[in-house]
Formats: sequence, C-alpha cells, structure tokens
Amino acid sequence: MAKKKKENEYIDPLACGTELLDRIEKTGDIKKLDAEELPALAEEIRAFLIRHISETGGHLGSNLGAVELTIALHMAFNLPEDKIIWDVGHQSYTHKLLTGRREGFETLRKYGGMSGFPKRKESDCDAFDTGHSSTSISAGLGMVEARELSGKKYSVVSVIGDGALTGGMAYEALNNAAKLWKNFIIILNDNNMSISENVGGVPNYLNALRTSEKYLDLKEDMYLSLVRSGNEGTARKIQKLKSMLKQFVVPGMLFENMGITYLGPVDGHDIPKMIRMIGYAKRVKGAVLLHVITQKGKGYLPAEKHPARFHGAEPFEIVSGMPKGLREKANYTDVFSTVMCRLGEQRSDVVAITAAMPDGTGLKRFHNLYPERFFDVGIAEEHAVTFAAGLAAGGMRPVVAIYSSFLQRAYDQILHDVCIQNLPVVFAVDRAGLVGADGETHQGIFDLSYLSSIPNMTVMAPKNKWELADMLRFAVEQERPCAIRYPRGQAYDGLEEHRPAIEYGKSEVLQEGGEICLVAVGSMVKTAVEIRERLKQEGRECSLVNVRFVKPIDEGMYPFALKHRLVVTLEENVAAGGFGERFLAGLEESAVGGKMPQFLAISLPDAYVEHGNVELLKKDVGLDADSILARIKEKQGG
Amino acid sequence: MAKKKKENEYIDPLACGTELLDRIEKTGDIKKLDAEELPALAEEIRAFLIRHISETGGHLGSNLGAVELTIALHMAFNLPEDKIIWDVGHQSYTHKLLTGRREGFETLRKYGGMSGFPKRKESDCDAFDTGHSSTSISAGLGMVEARELSGKKYSVVSVIGDGALTGGMAYEALNNAAKLWKNFIIILNDNNMSISENVGGVPNYLNALRTSEKYLDLKEDMYLSLVRSGNEGTARKIQKLKSMLKQFVVPGMLFENMGITYLGPVDGHDIPKMIRMIGYAKRVKGAVLLHVITQKGKGYLPAEKHPARFHGAEPFEIVSGMPKGLREKANYTDVFSTVMCRLGEQRSDVVAITAAMPDGTGLKRFHNLYPERFFDVGIAEEHAVTFAAGLAAGGMRPVVAIYSSFLQRAYDQILHDVCIQNLPVVFAVDRAGLVGADGETHQGIFDLSYLSSIPNMTVMAPKNKWELADMLRFAVEQERPCAIRYPRGQAYDGLEEHRPAIEYGKSEVLQEGGEICLVAVGSMVKTAVEIRERLKQEGRECSLVNVRFVKPIDEGMYPFALKHRLVVTLEENVAAGGFGERFLAGLEESAVGGKMPQFLAISLPDAYVEHGNVELLKKDVGLDADSILARIKEKQGG
Repeated sequence: MAKKKKENEYIDPLACGTELLDRIEKTGDIKKLDAEELPALAEEIRAFLIRHISETGGHLGSNLGAVELTIALHMAFNLPEDKIIWDVGHQSYTHKLLTGRREGFETLRKYGGMSGFPKRKESDCDAFDTGHSSTSISAGLGMVEARELSGKKYSVVSVIGDGALTGGMAYEALNNAAKLWKNFIIILNDNNMSISENVGGVPNYLNALRTSEKYLDLKEDMYLSLVRSGNEGTARKIQKLKSMLKQFVVPGMLFENMGITYLGPVDGHDIPKMIRMIGYAKRVKGAVLLHVITQKGKGYLPAEKHPARFHGAEPFEIVSGMPKGLREKANYTDVFSTVMCRLGEQRSDVVAITAAMPDGTGLKRFHNLYPERFFDVGIAEEHAVTFAAGLAAGGMRPVVAIYSSFLQRAYDQILHDVCIQNLPVVFAVDRAGLVGADGETHQGIFDLSYLSSIPNMTVMAPKNKWELADMLRFAVEQERPCAIRYPRGQAYDGLEEHRPAIEYGKSEVLQEGGEICLVAVGSMVKTAVEIRERLKQEGRECSLVNVRFVKPIDEGMYPFALKHRLVVTLEENVAAGGFGERFLAGLEESAVGGKMPQFLAISLPDAYVEHGNVELLKKDVGLDADSILARIKEKQGG
Repeated sequence: MAKKKKENEYIDPLACGTELLDRIEKTGDIKKLDAEELPALAEEIRAFLIRHISETGGHLGSNLGAVELTIALHMAFNLPEDKIIWDVGHQSYTHKLLTGRREGFETLRKYGGMSGFPKRKESDCDAFDTGHSSTSISAGLGMVEARELSGKKYSVVSVIGDGALTGGMAYEALNNAAKLWKNFIIILNDNNMSISENVGGVPNYLNALRTSEKYLDLKEDMYLSLVRSGNEGTARKIQKLKSMLKQFVVPGMLFENMGITYLGPVDGHDIPKMIRMIGYAKRVKGAVLLHVITQKGKGYLPAEKHPARFHGAEPFEIVSGMPKGLREKANYTDVFSTVMCRLGEQRSDVVAITAAMPDGTGLKRFHNLYPERFFDVGIAEEHAVTFAAGLAAGGMRPVVAIYSSFLQRAYDQILHDVCIQNLPVVFAVDRAGLVGADGETHQGIFDLSYLSSIPNMTVMAPKNKWELADMLRFAVEQERPCAIRYPRGQAYDGLEEHRPAIEYGKSEVLQEGGEICLVAVGSMVKTAVEIRERLKQEGRECSLVNVRFVKPIDEGMYPFALKHRLVVTLEENVAAGGFGERFLAGLEESAVGGKMPQFLAISLPDAYVEHGNVELLKKDVGLDADSILARIKEKQGG
C-alpha cells in the first residue's frame, strides 16, 4: 500500500453527490452499473457514510475500509441466495446501503431505527446476526454443511477481520474448515488493526504476508490451474507440485499448513482485482481464504489518522473530524483509568490486562506509564482470564478490564481457572447494564447472573464515581477474585458526602425511614435517589440501601428491610440469577416465623434489549423513575 | 513409531516389582537414580498405575502414555521451584507418584482422597489446577510474565496434548506467546488422540510432522547453533539463515509461522533423547514448542487397542482388560443415543454435533448410521455451538451434545449466536449435576443458572429415562433453542406409569395431597419419590410436582403450591440463579394479597464440590433423602 497519498485521494464528503447511489434502490441494482462506474460509486458511498455517521455516530473506520470489498462481493455474488456473514458486523453499512436500506441511515443505531449490525429480521440479505468477534467462520461452516445436506446451491462467504482472527473460536473453526471438500469462502479483511493495534504472532505473520503482494500476479497462473482441478486425482497431483513450489512462491503457509487454500494478498480497494480473485475462490473445492488488504478509515483523513477514535465514533464535525458534543463530566472508565495509574504507582505487583480494548477500557494511560505491566492479548477473552490466573498464581495482582457482554466469553475460565483456586484476580467489568446504540449483542445485562453463580466470587457495584475508586482499591487488596461492574457513560457524581470505607460484604444504608425500603444495586442508586425525592415531594419518606456487594449479599440488610412494609430491589440486570431473586430468597429465610413485607423486584425483562438511547430504553423496559414509581404505587394499592 | 511390537514390550503388571519406585519417597528423589535405571523405573510405574487404576478406576491411557515424558521432566527440572502445568491434568499420575503422593493412589478419585487432577492444595509441585482442556499455555504464559516482573528465575513448562490444541484458547495463548523474549517451554504431548480420534486441519498437520522424526538427528546441529544464540544480533542472523533453510528441513512451520520456535518431533518414550531436547529448549529466548510423540495406553495391550475405553476407565480385570462391574441398567446417555438414532431415521434434517466426545455423549451410534450428519469438531465447544447456529440458520435441526461443565465454555455463543436469533438448536446437556470421581472441574452444577439467564432459551430436565426420550423428541420439534439436562450414570426407571405427553412449559403433578408440596427438578424427582414414601411411612401425605421445564417456569405450579403449608424445591444445581430462587420469586408474586407458605429451597451450596462417590457427595452437600427430610422437619418445627 502506498505510504503517501495524493491530496485528491481524499473525497469532499459535502460536495460528493449521489448520482450512482440513486440508481441503487434494492438488492442487485448494483449489477446494472458499468464496471467503470464502481470506483465512483465507492466514492459516493464513502461520502454518504461520512455525512450520515457524522450526524448519528457509528462505526466509521471499519466501514470506510470495506466499501470496495463490499461492492466486489455484491458484484460477485447473488443476494439473498448467496450468504455473506459479516464477522462482528459493524462493517456492514455499505452492505446495508446496497440491500435497500438507504432510508434506514437516518435512524442508524437510534431507538426503533436500523441496527448498526446485521440482523436477519431487518433483511433477508443479512444471513446471520453478529456483534461479538470471531463467530463468522463457525456460522459459515454450519451453513455450508446445511447447504450440502439439503442439496442446495449457493455460496457461503465469511468476512472476518485480522483482529477477529486473534479470537480462539475463529481458529477452532478454521481447524474444522480444513476438512471440507466443499466450497467455503473466507475473506480475511486485513486492515492491520482490531479496534486498536493488533497484537501477537499471527498479526505479525499477516504483516509479513502483506508485503508480498508483488508475488500475486506471478502466481495467478498457478492458482488458475490449481482451482480448475475439480477431481481429486488431479488435485492430488497439483497438491504435490504445490508442496514443492509453495515454499518459495505461496505466502499464507500458516493457513496452507492447516489445510486451508490461501489466495492473496489482494488490494482491498481494487474492485476488479477482487472480483477476479473471488472468481478463483469460488472454484476451490474446499475452504479457501482470500486475503484482502484494506485501510481502516480509507478516504477520510481524520479516520485514517485516528483509527481508534473513529472505530465507534460519536457525532463529529466533518471538516475537522472533532466530536460535536463536549464531554463535561468524567465517565466511569475515566475514573477506572485514573485509579489504575495510581495503583500502578503504589503497588509494583499490579498488572493490567485488556482484550484488544486499551482505549475503550481506559487502560491506555496505565500502558503509557507501566508498559511492562500492561498486556493487550488481542480479542481473546478466554486467554485473558486464564493468563490473569497464571499471573496471580505467580504472585501478581492482575486487573482484567473487559466489557460485561464480552466477558461472557470467559465464563468458564473465571469459574474454572480463577475461582476454583480462589486466585486474587480483579475483574473490571465495564459497560455493565444498558449500553445503548450497539444494541442486543452489547448490552451488559447478564453479568450479575453469571458472576453470582460462581463460588468464591465477589461481585461489587459502585453507586457513584468515588465508590468505583474505593472499590477498585479495595478489590486489589483482597486475597480472592473480585469483580466490579460499572456502566457505560457519565459517572454519577451525586452522594459525594456518603463515602464510608468499603467493608467486605457490607452494604451501605443511605437513608432510613418510612414504609418503603429501596435496595439498589450500583447504577440504580441514582435512580433510587430520584424515586426517593419524588416520594418525598408527595410527603412520603423511604429508606434507601446501597447494596455495594451483590455477592456475597450482606445478610445485615434482611432485618433492616424486614422493618418495612414494601421492599423494592433495583438492578440493571435480567431477573434470572440477578440480585433481586437472591435477595428475596435470603429475605424469606430471615423472615422465619415473622411476616414477609411486600416485595417488588425491579430488573430487566427476560428478553434481549435492542439499540437506542439509554434513557429511552430504560423507559421501555421500565427501569426509569416514572415506571418504577408507578409499579410501587400499583403494588401498594394491591 | 514402530507399528508392530515384540511381545516382551508388554509388561506383566502383576509380576513387576517396585524396587526403584521404593527409592522415590519425595520430590527430587528420582534424581538419585542412575540414568540407566530410568527405563526400568518407567516399567515399574506403568505396572503400578495399571494395578492401582484397575482397582480405583481413572484415566489410564493418557497416564501410561506420559510416563517417560514425566520422568524426563522431573530429571530436567527442579520442583517445586520450576513450574509444570499439566493441561487437562488427567495425565499427571506419574507426576503425583514422583512428588511423594504414592500413598494417595489407594484413595485416588475417592471421597476425601487424592484428586485425579493437579491440585495446588494437594502439593506445592502442582503449579496450577486444571481439568478443562486447553488452559495450560495461558496459565503458563501468566507465570512467565510474573516471573519476569518479580525478577525470579525458574522455568515454566506447559504440557499440552494434541487434542487440547484443537481448543481455541490454546491458540489465543500461542498467539500471545509468540511475542515473548523470555524462555517459555511448551511440551506438545502428541498421541494423535483426544479422547477419541482427533479431528481437523491441525491434527492432520501434526500427523505429517510425526512422520518426520528421521530428520531430527540431522537437525540437531542446527538446533544447537540456534539455541546457543543468546544475543539478539546472532539470533537475527540465524533466523535469516533459518528462514531460508527451514522450508526444507524444519517441520513445525505452523508454529514457526506464528513465531514459536519448534523443536522435534522426538520419541516420547525415549528418556535420554527427551532430556537432551529439553536442555535445548531451556536455552531458547522465547516461546519454544517441543513436539513429543507418545502412545496412549503404552505398554498395556488392552489400553493401546481401546484408547477410548481406557481414557477414563472403570475398575477392570488386568489380564483381560474387561470392566469388573457389569452394567445392568441403561444410563441416560444410552437413552439419548438410541433416540438420536431414531430421530436420524425419521428426520433427514437432524444433525448431531459433539466436541471430541463421540463415545461419552453416546453419539457414536448416530455417527455409524448417519456419518454425513455427524460432526465431531474437536475440543472446541465455542465453535460447536456457533457451528450449530449456522446449521440451524441453514435449515437443519442440530442437536449439540456437550457435558454440562464443558458447555460453560460456550455460554456466550449460546446467548449471542443461538438465542438472539432464536434458532432451533437442541442442547443435550449430559453429566448435569454431580458427576463423582472427576471432581470440582467436572461437576455439572451451574447449567440451570447459566442457561436460565438467557432469553429465548427453554430448559428441560427429565425425571426418568422415558421422559428424556420424550423431551428429546419434543425439543427437535420446537422452533426455538431448547436445552435438556440429564445426569451421569444409571437412568431412573421408576414412575414408568407417569408418561403424559410433554407440553410446552407445563409441569406434571405426580401426586396431590397433604401439607407439603415437593417441587422437584429432573434427577431430584427420584429423591422426592423416596422422601414422599418415607413421609408416607410416618403417615403423612405430600404432593409431588415434576417441574419438567426449568425455563419457562410453569406458572400453573404457583396456585397449586400455594395450597400447601410448606413448599420444597429440589434441584441438583447451585442456588444462585437456579430453579428454587426463580420459583420463589414467582410464588411470592402469585401470593399477592394471600399468605405465603413456608418455603425451603434444596440445592447445592455456593461452593465447588470435590471428587468422590456421588451418593457420598450428595450426603455431604445435603442432597440425599435423609438430609432433606431432616431439613423439612426442622422447617416445620420452626
């Protein structure tokens, strides 16, 4: 790839029109365009995406990088018959544009609007829902086997990024794909980035391949003869020849060694070349990986320069690339980031681990200060957790910062490698609760359940930013596994005056009085304060308890709660296995012989929650003050 | 490796003495032996293991295969200073013998006795607890980093099988290990088997390497110069030379491509050769993989011939190799196996998936009948589940059979790839509940919690063998994800007369009458029947409900239960997120305005449960009829 660009390679998103795009109303319309018009279409799409995402926010960099690749795929395949599976899926905007969803971009990632990820219920051209990384090869392989068993004819294409290739399940799938004698196309969309920079041996290896594009033309003839070999006899002969030759001329030995045919690398912004290579790939009787080199943020200078910032961007000014809104208050991630730097200074045994999220988790500052104690393991949550267990067994104090929904990947490793041995690993569970625009796959609404089921685990949730700091310092001192879950976005800075020291397993009574007892977990303390004030305006007092420890539950809360006529638990988690059910069980046991108060558990419904503004979502699922007040009154009336 | 063996290569376990073994009382004693005595020691150890495991049962094949390897490791390293991490850990018996635990073999895997896996609390020579596959490289890498940060000097050795290498997290760890500039030794113990035959591209690749041992001697000189290169400058020069040469002479390019130095393959039954190679490995500045070829079951003909049967063996007759006890009744796995074969006949869209457990899950018969619809994906639970999602999206009806504790690995994939899209995948969750001899890492006591937290999921548990058959047939007809959890061991064949058709979300009232209502899940119905009979003997009636659906919970049970004075839920699962808590929450809500009955939730404690006979374990955790009766009476007295 050229290092320097001519100025005219950057489009003017505001000046660029939609003449070609206007001719694409539905799936397949792109095929009516002339081949020569496609590069101009790519420009129009880029400008369209920049204009829209600058308003709505969204995944800009990955989408700008995949414009030509998506065009090539839509030219080479027939949708919806052929199946394209987008790994992670945040790069599917061009695909959405080309499948009749242009109107949707006004509502992208908004409440009730178009998802930022592929959704089967949104279009029959979305073959498989994605959101978490490294799933596409597994899903694609399943579809290939289903196709063969049902005697149908269609192509299956899994489009996976180089970052997603650092995830173990992609490798499990490759290992299985190697057995195939049926066509299965894997497109490696290699931009040399996950969200931040890529790490590890395989990305290094890909980097080496990336430089070997010059070989491509030489090899084309060889590929042709290879892929023409439909029958096994010929295939075997060619395989033999290939074995002798490929050491010299074929890059991609890593994949070839596994048994996957490797094609490429090819320039991912050269549409005709990609279409030609896809044509070869279609003729391989087996799994074939086409290595496509793309540039994240391509065509928009700010996104090329700051790939991490434009990964999942907030609305921004097109000309400057600067965010439109100014953040006034710190968010929880900032607090975590600051305290980690302090802890790093105070304790030489504190180490930090992220799974490809140094920016998102706020660990970048720790990395800058203590590079030797910082580990970015790639998109590899399973490894991250067991690696932390190893560090703890070796005497370190690892802090693993992983988003709530991604930590689901490591449930077994937490249970099996950390908690059986009761190792002192701290889990900083960011993005816990509703996260908003990313939707179903990213809502962190299960962690209280899956973490609480694990013996030896301690689970905390802070009420405000000071408590997060205190809990993190407290957790690092513990001789056992501890998780702290905190939400996305602005940190609550109320209740500053309430800052008693964290005591293991102890809750905090914030207010006492009245008939109602609000028992709130983490982010819901803020809502409970609001509810309490609203009740006060009506002349009614109520007690308020900050749970602090979701596990172990403070048994001291039970006698306190039993003094009230109505106990209301509040949590931003599903009901099953969450705080409310476990609290009720303890309360019921404590009430032996006595009378149980009325009980109301406020939690998320047993359902996936779609994308949209968090405040709107909370209203929708009944987690806002209004809805909760209404339910309290209903309960008391009943 | 030689294909045919001379007769005298098989030891006589009954005739072989313990002269050398007697000289090994504690860790390090082995070093007092002469090098020439080591092969004879290996023979003694083999005979010892065969004699003991024939009595206690246990993992025979993997241990017989790893005798010489373990001896070589104990000769080459200093324990407990150096850290050996045994992946999965069921091959650590020789290691236990050499670290002062010979006495423990009388009590191996028995209640209160020695674990069949490494346990830090059992010995300071057990560096890390294992049980599930593919964790050792992650843990080892953590220890290496801890060693470097704390300025200590010791070796870290991860011993991983070729089967475990099909697990994705091993690859995540290799990808990270590639970055190391510090010594980290990975021993690939390659017996060309996981529990059954290995599958996939990587094992095929290893197979090709395995044949290249003849190159080894030629290469030794090259290795020597390579590993002597302590400084980076020389290393780089040699690297360059190596790059040019290795395509011809160095196997292991898959690992080399990732950035891991590859040594081997070496005969894993040749002690001096292994010690020499370990010596080279110690001098590599970085991650080095030593490929060791071993034979599962080595030295004991029945185990060599029937590796799957002797993987986790029941007590057996030494001479014939036949199991001592005869199974009289079918177990749940047999029932599953039979019904799957029928379903395969009736529906051409039913496909079956196992993660390296065709024997254990009972899918082998399905495989024999419908090979094209059977998929063994290797030890790759994550891929297994998303692959199934892909098959379902392609129109098939996949049945995924995975043990309860291993399915923990795929929590995110079930939640994210199957359930968001509400795809019709059936999960056959075998080994749910207490499993016995394998202990903490294998108890299936969390699945009701982690599965119930997932929206769109249906969770069933059969009371007896007929109900398992009915539920499986029912599940395959559903247009949504369904899990059926059933325990290890003999299937309950009582209550044959109670076989009403399965109705979605409906429980089954088995008996009605009296003050007490027993609400039992799956395996606990049998116990509840026993409790009911015992109460009857005391002249007391009680109601008995078979829950059938743990999710969704049959709301019809609430008014029924509310008619009683005491409601007792029974489940073989931890309390947190289990059935009891969720039932109580529903019951409390249903009791609005009315009076709540007394409530008693019988479940497993919030703790890991060690190994031992299941009946003893149940007594220990209070899940037997006696304990439950006592708690019922205590409750009623209170």
